[in-house]
Amino acid sequence: MRQVKKLFTAIACIAIASTGLAAFSTVTNAQTKIVQTQSVNQATYKKPKYIFTFIGDGMSYVQLNAAQVYQSAMKSSNIELSKLAITQFPVVGSATTQDSTSFCPDSASTATAISSGIKTHSGVIGLGIDKKTAPESITEKLKEEGYKIGIVSSVSIDHATPAAFYAHVASRKSMYDIALQLAESDFDYFAGGGLVQPTGANGDQKDAYEIIKEKGYNIVNTKEDILSLNNNSGKTYAISPELQDSKAMYYDLDAQNTSIRLKDFVQKGIDVLDNEDGFFMMVEGGKIDWAGHANDAMANIQDTIALDEAVKVAMEFAKKHPEETLIVVTGDHETGGMSIGQATTGYDTAFNLLSHQKMTYVEFDNLIKDYKKEVAVGNKKGTIEEVFPLIQENFGLISPNDAEVAKNSALVLTDYEYNKLVSAFEETMKAKEIRSTGVEVEILYGGYEPLSITLTHILNNKAGIGWTSYAHTGVPVPVYTMGTGAEIFNGSYDNTDIFNKMVELCKLN
Amino acid sequence: MRQVKKLFTAIACIAIASTGLAAFSTVTNAQTKIVQTQSVNQATYKKPKYIFTFIGDGMSYVQLNAAQVYQSAMKSSNIELSKLAITQFPVVGSATTQDSTSFCPDSASTATAISSGIKTHSGVIGLGIDKKTAPESITEKLKEEGYKIGIVSSVSIDHATPAAFYAHVASRKSMYDIALQLAESDFDYFAGGGLVQPTGANGDQKDAYEIIKEKGYNIVNTKEDILSLNNNSGKTYAISPELQDSKAMYYDLDAQNTSIRLKDFVQKGIDVLDNEDGFFMMVEGGKIDWAGHANDAMANIQDTIALDEAVKVAMEFAKKHPEETLIVVTGDHETGGMSIGQATTGYDTAFNLLSHQKMTYVEFDNLIKDYKKEVAVGNKKGTIEEVFPLIQENFGLISPNDAEVAKNSALVLTDYEYNKLVSAFEETMKAKEIRSTGVEVEILYGGYEPLSITLTHILNNKAGIGWTSYAHTGVPVPVYTMGTGAEIFNGSYDNTDIFNKMVELCKLN
Repeated sequence: MRQVKKLFTAIACIAIASTGLAAFSTVTNAQTKIVQTQSVNQATYKKPKYIFTFIGDGMSYVQLNAAQVYQSAMKSSNIELSKLAITQFPVVGSATTQDSTSFCPDSASTATAISSGIKTHSGVIGLGIDKKTAPESITEKLKEEGYKIGIVSSVSIDHATPAAFYAHVASRKSMYDIALQLAESDFDYFAGGGLVQPTGANGDQKDAYEIIKEKGYNIVNTKEDILSLNNNSGKTYAISPELQDSKAMYYDLDAQNTSIRLKDFVQKGIDVLDNEDGFFMMVEGGKIDWAGHANDAMANIQDTIALDEAVKVAMEFAKKHPEETLIVVTGDHETGGMSIGQATTGYDTAFNLLSHQKMTYVEFDNLIKDYKKEVAVGNKKGTIEEVFPLIQENFGLISPNDAEVAKNSALVLTDYEYNKLVSAFEETMKAKEIRSTGVEVEILYGGYEPLSITLTHILNNKAGIGWTSYAHTGVPVPVYTMGTGAEIFNGSYDNTDIFNKMVELCKLN
Repeated sequence: MRQVKKLFTAIACIAIASTGLAAFSTVTNAQTKIVQTQSVNQATYKKPKYIFTFIGDGMSYVQLNAAQVYQSAMKSSNIELSKLAITQFPVVGSATTQDSTSFCPDSASTATAISSGIKTHSGVIGLGIDKKTAPESITEKLKEEGYKIGIVSSVSIDHATPAAFYAHVASRKSMYDIALQLAESDFDYFAGGGLVQPTGANGDQKDAYEIIKEKGYNIVNTKEDILSLNNNSGKTYAISPELQDSKAMYYDLDAQNTSIRLKDFVQKGIDVLDNEDGFFMMVEGGKIDWAGHANDAMANIQDTIALDEAVKVAMEFAKKHPEETLIVVTGDHETGGMSIGQATTGYDTAFNLLSHQKMTYVEFDNLIKDYKKEVAVGNKKGTIEEVFPLIQENFGLISPNDAEVAKNSALVLTDYEYNKLVSAFEETMKAKEIRSTGVEVEILYGGYEPLSITLTHILNNKAGIGWTSYAHTGVPVPVYTMGTGAEIFNGSYDNTDIFNKMVELCKLN
């Protein structure tokens, strides 16, 4: 009988205007019945007490499926899809991502769309098109309602995506200002990477870490301190003990020796934030995007899987609070124009070949730097033959000059590939100031270390992965949801509606 | 009170096993409540009396959004998405497309997955992995239930996608066998393109058109006869009066002078099929795929918009039968690894530039053929300068040698682009037997006429569109639905579940 009571309540609620469902009401009269059914369901939802929002930066349908195809290829040569936890969520919507500047938007504007429900310029965080008006974000609204707020990112915590959930600045480059606003936010849990400009762009400002501490935050950056975090830790900023590039956490592919992974920060976030009034936690997998920019499929896939692992932690929590938890997993935009399949492999893929890549382009860049130093002091000659053992060890690729080529033919370079690699190696060996320029070089290397990106391109192509860009693209992103109120995220809508739907569900103004 | 009765019926139905909802039941216990809610809703659905299944061949999220970005760019320089009707459907699911052979599947196996709920090899139509066992397709099941059946395609009616809805053959190449099975199908309405092998692969078989007539079909191929089709026309095969390549209808971009468009065949399908016992109509936009293979974005976009126009006809019908109509719009796979955004344009797009393309690669190929004949007989010299007026007229591209370059700078070729074009022109002017070969040529031209595909590549790149492949890719496809039962297509699932969900909704075995 409780069901029947709920239904009557629900019917009474149909008349209430539902901004979050605007996307459903634009088609035809034929849809009226369905729209009403959805309103009925929605009105019976409990306001979610625990909300997780995971954002895979640069992660769209293709990145998620590439991770699945990789898992599948590593398990069996049969074509059987090994699914991520994310894609098994019961609900998925599709969101368009254009901002007010571009159909290929940046992360500042798209994260602002998700956090605050507005379209703004690329590069702008938490401000409207006038770059002045500050909308109230979902995190600010929920904070006022008594929710505790957590912000986690695998990249620096002052980066665009996390910043859009706690800051309002006209330029994402104002990272010192963003850090100061972090200090002022009074939010409860920050975790992941460090600050890029703790003492300002010119290094002449008061240390932002000190300011954050003065505002009552407990800053921890050792494994022991992080794992000790709990419900009594108070306002916390937990920084990964190991940082890689630009104050970001390590790529998951390079993280064998790190003590804390993204999933650990989600678990500690739950430990810190859990309370009677509920919490909201935003978790960004930020290096999926960076790997997309660098056209490094293996790094991209491993960080997508790491995000999936982090999502599983939230799912475990949801099991204990099934009627009170909402989990949203989305991307802010696609990065790289990645595809499963590409010109030279046609209808074939061999994603298992990716497993021969042992480190990301970032770590290989470091090896090359070391090698170039050896060449500079005369310890090495600077030939491709000399570098090939490094290449074979870390990417599995085999020189066509190698006598043992027949042993693993899929990894032997064709002449076409070998020539490309030699050109890239020669470019890499040049001092920066005498390197080739022009559009062809830009297309080939995209500003990355020529040898490293040529290696990922070749291995990716052999595996059956193509890329069209070193920037973001305009393909829509999925919005996977589970838990209380998840269904209202069904359908096709704009990324601003992710905010609108949360506001609706949480009965906020 | 009717609502309450429905609810009780629904609750009683929760216990019934629901194969179509299997995808929803694999996550966590936390989801139990939602799964039950969805079952409750589903059980209240009426069996749809009128079912439309639109398949955009090679159409995934990116193709749909590319069409939207193009429409937007043609309307305004502001970044405001001009939506298709399809993406305004209230429900969208996401389907994976791998077949038993590949993560980059072909249209035979994917159409079989949709029509018959099974995974099979690439190239196989309506048969299992053993290439012998024939599953009963949705069309065959519904025919037995008394539904009238319509099959419409913009490509030849014996092509893989339409064939999977009426034929069972081990190879999609057996087009004569497919035509014979069309004749035997007893389905009610075939429309669109012609037959590729009416007298068999060797031209020595009895004319399949004659056989189709002998089986009681009325074959019509004039505008007048097609427009006269109605509820009394009996079994019909309506062939477009104008056919372009491979017995397909014209690309919509080239269709200015054609008398019948895809949307007209949908309207006539409704006229022919409408009856008391209901109907099922499958409509394929087949040349979206062909344009994807050829990396011709403008052709791709225009055929996507043509499919949207065809969908609108079904939506008009649904308005009159809102509680009895289901419309499903999906793709069978993505083609080309298309992206909105690409390396040389970064975060910018200029899709309005595409409007300078006045014909598809197919028609431009014909112009080039004519030009080469002129060269062969000595009427033309065979220089790029001589061809440039054709290029400028049909693609808008301006030679850097042109004195008036400043007038429309976005369309002036860079030296990089010009050099690519000259190489392609030289290749095109060669006799086929002395053309260059090798992987580089394959990557550049993909087997297409070098000049034509280089022109679409250059114009696409200038507009901000990239491609990675001349084949199919493994990105998931959207499943947009509206009407009775539409909601069960929410969520993330395999393409075989499109069939399963229809079977569930229609209460079939």
